[in-house]
Formats: sequence, C-alpha cells, structure tokens
Amino acid sequence: MNGLRLKSGDGMNIADLRDRILNQERRALARAITLVESAREDHRAQAAELLDGLRGAGRQALRIGLSGTPGVGKSTFIESFGMMLTAQGLRVAVLAVDPSSARSGGSILGDKTRMERLSRDKNAFIRPSPSQTHLGGVARRTREAVALCEAAGFDVVLIETVGVGQSETVVAEMSDLFLLLLAPAGGDELQGVKRGIMEMADVILVNKADGDLKPTAMRTCADYAGALRLLRKRPQDPEGFPKAMTVSALEEDGLAQAWEEMQSLTGWRKENGHWEGRRAHQAQYWFHEELRQALLARLETKEAQRLVAAAGAEVAAGDMAPTAAAEKVLGALGITQT
Amino acid sequence: MNGLRLKSGDGMNIADLRDRILNQERRALARAITLVESAREDHRAQAAELLDGLRGAGRQALRIGLSGTPGVGKSTFIESFGMMLTAQGLRVAVLAVDPSSARSGGSILGDKTRMERLSRDKNAFIRPSPSQTHLGGVARRTREAVALCEAAGFDVVLIETVGVGQSETVVAEMSDLFLLLLAPAGGDELQGVKRGIMEMADVILVNKADGDLKPTAMRTCADYAGALRLLRKRPQDPEGFPKAMTVSALEEDGLAQAWEEMQSLTGWRKENGHWEGRRAHQAQYWFHEELRQALLARLETKEAQRLVAAAGAEVAAGDMAPTAAAEKVLGALGITQT
Repeated sequence: MNGLRLKSGDGMNIADLRDRILNQERRALARAITLVESAREDHRAQAAELLDGLRGAGRQALRIGLSGTPGVGKSTFIESFGMMLTAQGLRVAVLAVDPSSARSGGSILGDKTRMERLSRDKNAFIRPSPSQTHLGGVARRTREAVALCEAAGFDVVLIETVGVGQSETVVAEMSDLFLLLLAPAGGDELQGVKRGIMEMADVILVNKADGDLKPTAMRTCADYAGALRLLRKRPQDPEGFPKAMTVSALEEDGLAQAWEEMQSLTGWRKENGHWEGRRAHQAQYWFHEELRQALLARLETKEAQRLVAAAGAEVAAGDMAPTAAAEKVLGALGITQT
Repeated sequence: MNGLRLKSGDGMNIADLRDRILNQERRALARAITLVESAREDHRAQAAELLDGLRGAGRQALRIGLSGTPGVGKSTFIESFGMMLTAQGLRVAVLAVDPSSARSGGSILGDKTRMERLSRDKNAFIRPSPSQTHLGGVARRTREAVALCEAAGFDVVLIETVGVGQSETVVAEMSDLFLLLLAPAGGDELQGVKRGIMEMADVILVNKADGDLKPTAMRTCADYAGALRLLRKRPQDPEGFPKAMTVSALEEDGLAQAWEEMQSLTGWRKENGHWEGRRAHQAQYWFHEELRQALLARLETKEAQRLVAAAGAEVAAGDMAPTAAAEKVLGALGITQT
C-alpha cells in the first residue's frame, strides 16, 4: 500500500530505528509507523520496545485534532494551514483517523495528491490512515504514531478525522486542541452538528469565507458563536473560548489569526496547568480503554473461540441459558470472579 | 415501590415459588420478578435456580416488542390492544424497558393509572420498568421477567420501550415481533425515524387515525409503506411484510386487523422455521452480550478497582504507557493471554 512493508525476518534493529527517529529521519519514522500498525505479535512486541525507548526523549508536539464532514474543505485547509506553519520553520505531521476505511479499504488521506504542495514539503510528513477492522485498533495505532512523530521532532501533529460515529471522540481524546471545520450554511440549523461534538471543540472554523459565500460564512460563524456562548463554561478555557472564526483555506485568509488564537489558548492552558492536566486525563482515558479492549481480546483467542462456539450451539438449541453459558465459558478460561 | 419487596432472610422456598408460578399465581409471578430484578448475590443465585427450574415447562408466549416516542399514544394503544386480547380469553403481560429510568428514577410504566382498565383486568399483568443503572442490567432482568411470564402461562407478552438510544435493539432482540408505533405527521420527513429502527420493525402502526388527524395518518402510513418497500427484503418475511397500517387506539379501530396481521406473520414464520430460528439467534446474541458483560464485570471487583486506581495514577503521571499498564493490571488479576 505505502511501499514500506515490513519484511518478515529482516532483523530489524529497534535500537537503530530509535536513534534514526530521534535523528529526525523520515524513512525511519515511516517504517516505525508501519511497525505500530502491524497486528503481528512479534511486531507488537517490537513496537512496544521502540515506544518505550522513545518515551524518555521527552519531546512534545502540539497535537491538533481536526474534524469536518466531507465537503467542508479539510484537505485544502490542512494544506494551506500546514504550508503556513512550515514557512515559519515548524515541522508538521499529518495523521488520520478514518473509521470508514475499515469498510471501504480506502483511506481519507490515501490520496496524497489531495495535499500536493504539503506532501512535497521537506518539513511536512503526511501519513494515510491505516485500514483496520475496528476503531479501537485505529485509535491505538494513531496514538502510537503521534508518539513517534513527537519523538521525531515534529512541532505540530495534525490528526484529521471525518465526522463519523465515535471518531471525533477518539481524536479529541488524543489532541491538545480540537478544531471543528464547517462549511457556510444557509438557515440557522447549525448543520446538524451534535451538541456533544460542539462541546469538544476549542475552535470552530467556518471555512470558505470567500467570494459569494463570505456573507453566509459570517452569518454561520455568528450562529455558532452564539451557540458556543450557551454551552457551560469549561475550566480549561480562558475568557472568549471556545471560539468561532471564519477562514478561507482557498485564499489562505484568516489562517494566521486562527493559529494565533490556538497559540494563545495553548499558552494560557500551559500556564494554568490545564495542558498537562489534559494529557494526564487522556492517558487515564486510554488506559481504561486499553483495559477494556485487552480484557475483551481474551475472547478472541482460538481456545476461547472454540469454547464460545460450543456454548453458543447449546444456547441456540435451548439447552442452556445465555447467562449460565457465559459463566461456563469464563470459568473454562480460568477467568473466575475474584 | 411496588409493595413486593423481598425481605432478607425470609427463607424463600424456590421450589414452592416455581410451582406457584406454573400454577399461574400472579403474586408469585410479581415476587419472582422482584427476585430477578435484585442485584444481591444470593438473590441472583436464587433467580438462576428458579429460571432453571422453569425452563423445562416449555411454555412459550408470543413476545411483542413495541417502541414509540412519548406522545404517540403508547399507553392508550397497549390498553386498547391488551383489552381486545383479554376479551378473546388471552392472558396478556406488559413489561417495559426504560433506559431513562436509570437517570430519573421514574419509570414509563410506573403509573398504572395510565392503563386503568387493563391494570384491573384479571387476565392482564402490568409490571413497571425497574430502575437500573445501565441498559445491560435492564436487558437481562427484562429477559428473565419475560421468561417468568411465559412460565406463568401468559399468551402474549408485550415489551414496551421509548425510542431512546439502544433500547429498541434490546427490545427487538427479545421479541418475536417488533412493532413501531408512530403519530401522524405533516410533510414527508418520516419523523426522523432512523433507518436502523425501520429495519427492525415487522409492523409499523400509525396511531391516532381518528377525527381530524385521519387523513394525515393515512398519508403518513402511505409514506412509511413506501419507505418499507425500499428496504432490502428479509428472509424472515412473507410477501407484504414489513407492513405499515393505521390504527386508532382511542376509537379501538384497526386493532383487530393489526392483530390478524401479527398472527398471520407469526403463523408463516412458524411454518417456515423462522420463528424458532429467530429465538435461537436471539439466545446466541444474549449469550455474547452476557459474555462481554461478565468479562468486563471482572474489572468491578474491589481488588480490580484497587489495581486499576494504582496503575491509573502511574499512567497519569507519565510513568507508564496506557497499553503496558492495562496488561499489568490484567496480569495481576491472573487474566493472562491464553
């Protein structure tokens, strides 16, 4: 898919890979991300060793989550915004969480031509979303890819997602800042953005504030500014946040102001302990998620699947009640109530 | 709440309770439902013994799931429909799955005066929804209550729910037939009924087809009939199903026809193996749900909570990665990858 397949038995030297990542080598980073995306058990072990070795480096990027439904101009925004940052000498990585790729096999960042200029920029690194079977796996691999990008010295990591199902929560829970990108919309229907998504946003950007759409964009922005004021004040926000702004990714207008607001918000949060607090809270969140998933993974082993199939047949035949059958399987797996 | 509290240490005789349920004693049924609703460990054990003892009786009711948002006339429908069935000599039980009761402490069937006539009918049994903390618990207790009603010789068990979150899936997965009750609506917006809910319905009933609303009800019914035709044909449906019909619960109009259609559908499914097939499939579904929940319950023990809190603190402090911490906790609990 991406020309970076891991060969089996290629004697990967994890210490060497670690050094090359710390040395900001893009090929090493790409290879390490392929490693964390692998489901193979030996790869998982190597990935854990690599991440453990990199954790001490203490490098931290600004992680910016970005959500927006297809058509709001996400690619154009990332390209324009990313180019502005690299022009300032910042190194920018772009990752994606795409729950739809599990079904379609495609990926929202698969087509690098979508961000033609940024993908050729030596200070930018764009990585398509992996095809995975469930969001839990995507989340872990993306978190690990973020950690790799940070270790490789990127200043900003943009994590893109489409507004589908739980993917916004996944991205918000691994971001320092969460941006919601919207298109100008007639009427005051707030584009059916769910309250829960609004509550996650730190900055709402109404894109396409250019040409004929500019007045509509400004009206939409005012609508969202009003809606944001109705939300309960969050302790992690200074006065004036969360904020709604208009931008034109196409005309590269408003991007500098948006970046200023993000930096101002980040500065305030760092000074007031909310930045570290959010990261600590997120680490706890992912710990609980990992715990649930690791526990449920116990049912995916061959032995467990055999027991489940046998008990399931008895249940279907009416020979055993579902509850009793569940306890029987867990007992046979040695997972007893303690 | 319901005057049937279980006294601790009252030396409940499960064999006796079993016999009285099989003997169709309402008080025994009410008491048994209170028993299955209890979270106490000794009560859970007694409930399991009782359900096991009743499973052999082989009595089966027609389980009818019924969903509808507040205001569509669910209570009036259940009262009119239930009274029609009892007038035919059938015994009717009414249960409820109410995910909102966990928060409000209330219950959609708490107020028996909502179904005044039916609640006084000696061939009817109405049980309010229990207050529970999560839908998983509500689902298990409702399934067990359904089994108790079947053992107590009821011919029809109506399981009511409001259209909130996952509650429709829960009810559909424990019903032989799933009814969706709707109100007449202007426009062709299909009242925002989600496609997933539509796909669960066997019969859509547009209520309030009386007085001024009758033309609107008929138009709404035609809209839904059209929408149902666009759905993929399901193997468990004879020609003409799923079906949309108008009824007036208030004027008791259309109820006999609706009941005829339900019987016709049930008859066809029984003849073609789909009725038993659906029950077997549902048993498997609940087995898998129970398995997941029983597994996750391992994290709720005091010992587990202590380990989780300690590891969580390390994760929040940045001393351990979420994935490693999760494996450490499971290892300490003796839940190792097999």
